[in-house]
Amino acid sequence: MQVARRPRRLTRLCGRNPLGAMPPQNPLVDDRTVDFILFDVLDVGALLALPAFQEHTVEGVKIFLGATRRLSREVLYPAYKPMDEAPPRLVDGRVVVHPVMKELYPRLVELGLLNATRPAEVGGQQLPFTVMTLASVYPMAANLGAYGYLGLTAGAARLIESFGSAALKERFMAPMYEGAWTGTMALTEPQAGSSLSDVQCRATPAGDHYLIRGSKIFISGGDHDAVENIVHLALARIDGAPPGIKGVSLFAIPRLRPEGERLVPNDVHVAGVIHKIGWRGLPSLALNYGEQGDCHGYLVGEPHRGIHYMFQMMNEARLMVGMNGVATASVAYQESLEYARNRPQGRPLRSKDPRAPQVPIVAHEDVRRMLLRQKAIVEGGLLLLGVTARYADRAEHAEGAEARQRARWLQDLLTPIAKTFPAERGFEANALAVQVLGGYGYSSEYLPESWLRDQKLNSLHEGTTGIQGLDLLGRKVPAEGGAAMMAFLEEVGATVGSALEAGVPASWCARVEQAAGELRDVTLHLLGLGQQGDAEAMLRHSADYMEMMATVVVGWLWLWMAAAAEKGLRERPEDAALFEGKRCAAQYWIEGELGRVAHWAALCRSGEDSYARMQDAWF
Amino acid sequence: MQVARRPRRLTRLCGRNPLGAMPPQNPLVDDRTVDFILFDVLDVGALLALPAFQEHTVEGVKIFLGATRRLSREVLYPAYKPMDEAPPRLVDGRVVVHPVMKELYPRLVELGLLNATRPAEVGGQQLPFTVMTLASVYPMAANLGAYGYLGLTAGAARLIESFGSAALKERFMAPMYEGAWTGTMALTEPQAGSSLSDVQCRATPAGDHYLIRGSKIFISGGDHDAVENIVHLALARIDGAPPGIKGVSLFAIPRLRPEGERLVPNDVHVAGVIHKIGWRGLPSLALNYGEQGDCHGYLVGEPHRGIHYMFQMMNEARLMVGMNGVATASVAYQESLEYARNRPQGRPLRSKDPRAPQVPIVAHEDVRRMLLRQKAIVEGGLLLLGVTARYADRAEHAEGAEARQRARWLQDLLTPIAKTFPAERGFEANALAVQVLGGYGYSSEYLPESWLRDQKLNSLHEGTTGIQGLDLLGRKVPAEGGAAMMAFLEEVGATVGSALEAGVPASWCARVEQAAGELRDVTLHLLGLGQQGDAEAMLRHSADYMEMMATVVVGWLWLWMAAAAEKGLRERPEDAALFEGKRCAAQYWIEGELGRVAHWAALCRSGEDSYARMQDAWF
Repeated sequence: MQVARRPRRLTRLCGRNPLGAMPPQNPLVDDRTVDFILFDVLDVGALLALPAFQEHTVEGVKIFLGATRRLSREVLYPAYKPMDEAPPRLVDGRVVVHPVMKELYPRLVELGLLNATRPAEVGGQQLPFTVMTLASVYPMAANLGAYGYLGLTAGAARLIESFGSAALKERFMAPMYEGAWTGTMALTEPQAGSSLSDVQCRATPAGDHYLIRGSKIFISGGDHDAVENIVHLALARIDGAPPGIKGVSLFAIPRLRPEGERLVPNDVHVAGVIHKIGWRGLPSLALNYGEQGDCHGYLVGEPHRGIHYMFQMMNEARLMVGMNGVATASVAYQESLEYARNRPQGRPLRSKDPRAPQVPIVAHEDVRRMLLRQKAIVEGGLLLLGVTARYADRAEHAEGAEARQRARWLQDLLTPIAKTFPAERGFEANALAVQVLGGYGYSSEYLPESWLRDQKLNSLHEGTTGIQGLDLLGRKVPAEGGAAMMAFLEEVGATVGSALEAGVPASWCARVEQAAGELRDVTLHLLGLGQQGDAEAMLRHSADYMEMMATVVVGWLWLWMAAAAEKGLRERPEDAALFEGKRCAAQYWIEGELGRVAHWAALCRSGEDSYARMQDAWF
Repeated sequence: MQVARRPRRLTRLCGRNPLGAMPPQNPLVDDRTVDFILFDVLDVGALLALPAFQEHTVEGVKIFLGATRRLSREVLYPAYKPMDEAPPRLVDGRVVVHPVMKELYPRLVELGLLNATRPAEVGGQQLPFTVMTLASVYPMAANLGAYGYLGLTAGAARLIESFGSAALKERFMAPMYEGAWTGTMALTEPQAGSSLSDVQCRATPAGDHYLIRGSKIFISGGDHDAVENIVHLALARIDGAPPGIKGVSLFAIPRLRPEGERLVPNDVHVAGVIHKIGWRGLPSLALNYGEQGDCHGYLVGEPHRGIHYMFQMMNEARLMVGMNGVATASVAYQESLEYARNRPQGRPLRSKDPRAPQVPIVAHEDVRRMLLRQKAIVEGGLLLLGVTARYADRAEHAEGAEARQRARWLQDLLTPIAKTFPAERGFEANALAVQVLGGYGYSSEYLPESWLRDQKLNSLHEGTTGIQGLDLLGRKVPAEGGAAMMAFLEEVGATVGSALEAGVPASWCARVEQAAGELRDVTLHLLGLGQQGDAEAMLRHSADYMEMMATVVVGWLWLWMAAAAEKGLRERPEDAALFEGKRCAAQYWIEGELGRVAHWAALCRSGEDSYARMQDAWF
């Protein structure tokens, strides 16, 4: 609120000091829930028993979590609003970001977040990805833009770690992992967008390097002044390469290139700053390489394998986006919860005496509905990311090839869902947070609107929601003769068994089982269409299939949490409030949401063809 | 996009000139569809045959529409983006708005939009509200903020017209209808929000006026420099009034009060400007009345009847908000359609040859899904507002008391839906428009993000979505022993009959009939709970009931449009594209959306009680 002449009165007018719009008490994420998921549900203790993680203990994990929470709350969150309000600017061809980034970045690095899951050889701690995933939700919730610099750098360094030569590792990976330089993923081009087979950026061999020429767009962190140098992991086409994705190679292209002891300009230029509506702490740029014909790029791995390498990283990147979505929904949920507990307005349905005091709005059922829906999405999303990360850990480190294979299938299957559910349902949750704040939610004096803006990106980057739907139904589900789906249905069955044993209402278990059965039947039907060669018919309702499967998956996860809550209620009655909340949210999802599955199943089955038939001229 | 050194290249980089982000070709709303709804579906010709509208002809209506379209496209729309970018500022205690408003407002007034539906005595043309409603969608789509000044003024003037004395009409109503002054609706107070029974603003009798003291918040158009004077229609409590809504009176409070020939300051002060996230052309303010004890208010009508008067106006205000929602979804739909037709990217599923040229994204089924969903929401919403407005016209002017009574019931019943459906599903449509533009949609160089921001207000003002749900199920449905719902079901039955006759697929008709039957059965069940005195149980799922009924209502309307399209295909084959589009959208809604009804019905019936049980401490 722009204040007129009487700021003190204004505080009263707005019901709340605008300067208090970022109350220090927002916890970002509920600690008890994260602990519940890590230790009660996912049993991280068992994961730590695997040989790869033997150096870690539950105590150590808790210390790491604690440090991440503190940094997020005390350092990152207070910088969020200032960074949102003063987005990056272009000054003399360079991008200037909020000066606080110079302080934040080393703090993030110091915490070990860049390479926490990496092995000791590259300076990492080899922490389970599960732990890293559930820790990273805090800095993301605190300051998505600031965390973005780190996430992108980790991805870029990881590509070189996996596929680069020893020389590239020393030159480019090491300074990124050390926190001295940052990295980017430079895939998108203006004419190509999601269609990577249309990448046109060119690479001409020139001895130990290539000369790069071309343009990229939407490059996050593509230029800034928070650190000395930036390494772009970019896709380009070597002269004479075959057309399509089989002719795309991966290059490391530094902003400044090392020549002897010096760093010299590498002909990388900022063509424009995109005015994003969210993530405003992190610049998104159009870049030009090689305007003067002097942009050196260094081939990573073999020629023409760029898309293959990128895809190997894509799982992790998509899980990171999923966690961005959960985090952004979480911080807004916490803010709207706090507001609902403190904002008096109206009276209960049965007590309309205007002389009675007003009640906090959390007392109204419809407000609790909006809060419980947010909670069910946020916490369901947290476990979705957590369980997918655990499959990733087991895919790499479980004992026995079969166990690893099975975990890999499940990780692959769940990844598009773990990316999409938080983006789409998270956006809905973020809109509910705005709604809970009423007119105040519609003003930029309060924070929920900024998280609503932040969230919208997650359905767009790292593969749009439409692309995730095609990936799920067109690739992940049919892979290996449907082995992943079979494994998933077995997991559901196992959870139903333990939930019954734990004392979860049998009707909930039956509901989840029934929904999984519907999913199975529809899947078989669609796979049949695919086998008959009718890919269009199979994929026509991939958007509905995604919603259906995501809803079933989250139903399974809430059943799992309900089982853990029953156990908790018996064993730790002092935490009853935590467990009762889990039971209510599980009921909300299982009794309230799984009923939607039948509709999506019918649509997938019917092949309803309105938008297939629709012609351009008819709109 | 902030441009670096080479703007020309940037055009290519972005695929599109940022300055062209507001292409003149955006039609705002599809003219053919508005004509189809007015003349083919709603048969405005028949409405004009009523005695009240005898002075009007179909030709005259078309001329009025044409003038509104031109002004909207040529004058209002080009000012939208500049007004969004330069929101109102507080300068020396006064609000300064974008200077273009000084030009726009007289143009809007000149068109006759302020009092088009009012009788000749107050300078109006007594046009059917139906026509005004479907004309107003154009200026709203073009520039929601600019139109807001006019809509608020019309509402304020109308209150005085209906309830004020002759003196008040001359002093305050006349200059508002003439366009010299603007008006506001000053209801909300910081401590009260949606709870109008908690209004605290005080009015102390002082001869021919009252002295007003108190604070209001979220007052749209509450101060600005576009016209000379502003009249606030404000709720306040006369000293000694009873508590609650029965002690609230309505006052006209001018910013400058007429004293003889002069206008003198009336002790009305701006306490702060709220930084809204949308509608940024229209200021939203915190106001203080009577800081110096010299704020004169003039009682409108009788004491303690303020809420009663306001409620009489509320129907129209809520329909206006509904139309805001439709308009905001419409302009974004048109923009994303244009984009999808022109943006090449990717290739069809069956043709992955990377050497083949890319196709416009409208060729991808999932993009057409997003466009068709927008179309179904936008055009379903247009008819929803149109039909509700026609009931309003007939409630006032139909021949025979019975016909008027029936129309009034239907108007009352549909109003909360006509307010909520466009706000909620419109927001979803606006998010889809952003999604169609991909990364470009996430930048403020393109317009869809601004409409997404604009839209979010519509679920909040004029009664939140939660309040509309309670109004629908708690008041409108049970009123007069359910007479309105009975009338609605009869209307559906009649439409089913004529659709069958027109050649609409029998399966669509059966689907609509079945959905209406489900709605009827659930309604009877819930009314039974109410009759047993269990209001909580009856209203527990009012949010689900609202979604269910809105989906059925829009299904009914699409069936109606499908019938008109069948007729059109036979009679005007040259417009086949228009009619085919209507058939596809009808199919989309009837086959694709009505299947959701069973789920909501089951929830309403089961009384699923998770959020009822949920306690504050469990979140």
